[in-house]
Amino acid sequence: MRNRKYEAGNSGGFQSEAAKRNLLWIKASGLKLRFCTNETQATREQFVRKLQGFGFDISVDEVTAPAPAACRVLRERGLRPHLLVHDDLIPEFAEIDRTNPNCVVIGDAADKFTYANLNEAFRVLIGLENPVLIALGRGRYYKETDGLKLDVGAYMKALEYACDVQAEVVGKPAKSFFESALAELGVEPQQAVMVGDDIENDVGGAQRCGLRAVQVRTGKYRPSDENHPQVKPDAYVDNLAEAVELILQQLRE
Amino acid sequence: MRNRKYEAGNSGGFQSEAAKRNLLWIKASGLKLRFCTNETQATREQFVRKLQGFGFDISVDEVTAPAPAACRVLRERGLRPHLLVHDDLIPEFAEIDRTNPNCVVIGDAADKFTYANLNEAFRVLIGLENPVLIALGRGRYYKETDGLKLDVGAYMKALEYACDVQAEVVGKPAKSFFESALAELGVEPQQAVMVGDDIENDVGGAQRCGLRAVQVRTGKYRPSDENHPQVKPDAYVDNLAEAVELILQQLRE
Repeated sequence: MRNRKYEAGNSGGFQSEAAKRNLLWIKASGLKLRFCTNETQATREQFVRKLQGFGFDISVDEVTAPAPAACRVLRERGLRPHLLVHDDLIPEFAEIDRTNPNCVVIGDAADKFTYANLNEAFRVLIGLENPVLIALGRGRYYKETDGLKLDVGAYMKALEYACDVQAEVVGKPAKSFFESALAELGVEPQQAVMVGDDIENDVGGAQRCGLRAVQVRTGKYRPSDENHPQVKPDAYVDNLAEAVELILQQLRE
Repeated sequence: MRNRKYEAGNSGGFQSEAAKRNLLWIKASGLKLRFCTNETQATREQFVRKLQGFGFDISVDEVTAPAPAACRVLRERGLRPHLLVHDDLIPEFAEIDRTNPNCVVIGDAADKFTYANLNEAFRVLIGLENPVLIALGRGRYYKETDGLKLDVGAYMKALEYACDVQAEVVGKPAKSFFESALAELGVEPQQAVMVGDDIENDVGGAQRCGLRAVQVRTGKYRPSDENHPQVKPDAYVDNLAEAVELILQQLRE
């Protein structure tokens, strides 16, 4: 079973020397690996450069991220987006026609979530006969060094309510997101394990797509996650090394 | 039945010479009158001064508005608000203790709906053991001379989602708001008629409180309102004069 596949979570668990060693260990063990991130404040190139800068063995073609998923949807359906996203993400949409918009794409725009920008996106949506709102994620909030910040999901809800529409989420926990990652790996859901710190977006999303999922007790993890009313991980681990051991052990059995 | 009571809607129907005459006519007919507004970009004093400036016979003690309703709730429950409201509304909260906040009050803050201000209100809420969010209304959007703008309801939804709370709405269409107006008039719901242009906040809210409600085909009214899935007005009128005629006619019968 050495060809059993392995899918790693977002950057939450990758912030130490041990994490770098574990990454090399995963690859050396012959496990296939994919980084699944909801990062929308940077292009994949910037994201990867940042992790490389920390010393991680990672390349752009190992990353599944929401913006390319959104671009696929836009192309398939002939949609021309009005972008309410972080400036640093805009290059991901370089090849997409944005004239005369017939949908809105919302990402974590951070400081760009101004009253004026929200109103502008709202006016595009409300002016459409069939309003389409594509969200790059549905996170509630996240922590930065200067405190908690509202994430894309909160602003998505504001637009959903104002326009009486339901957003289509293309990042985690969307099923299509995990399906893309599996297709890129060339494996079936039951051959893959998701490792992540986010009980809903990582664990819940992957399980709904048929993957097993391990929650790592780092980053976003909170002890209260273990009483989540809907989501039960297949296993808990204290760090990435434990997750790798667990997967390799199951492969040997 | 000349003492039958009459309750007028918001400022939507009050923008013409005819409206001024109708207002005098209502008062001369012996009908009790109350202005029910969700205006939260100004104090009642400013609101009334503006209408007086247009030539309307109106005084502050004839107005039911969300901010005083919020103040009643805050006092009754010992709540100290963090205010996310329009600067011009802040004087309505002059006598409320705002130190060490244990709830958030959200109104139509307009330009004050910045990313920083939203994050600040969010941090107050998420830091509370029992988060309380009081919304001065739940409007989706409104029209100004420079275009459509997101209303308080959209931002309320953002905070509800981020903090997993349900806001308590104190403006229209809240039952408590109409109950206040009735108490101030000293009448029972079945003795009152609401006249308004907003199918959900005016008509639906009043009907759920036991009042009859007439939708006036001006202001916010849209032909599609007449196919509203939940709300059916007791009558439609093309303008305020028709509403007054209808009420006086029913009183004579």
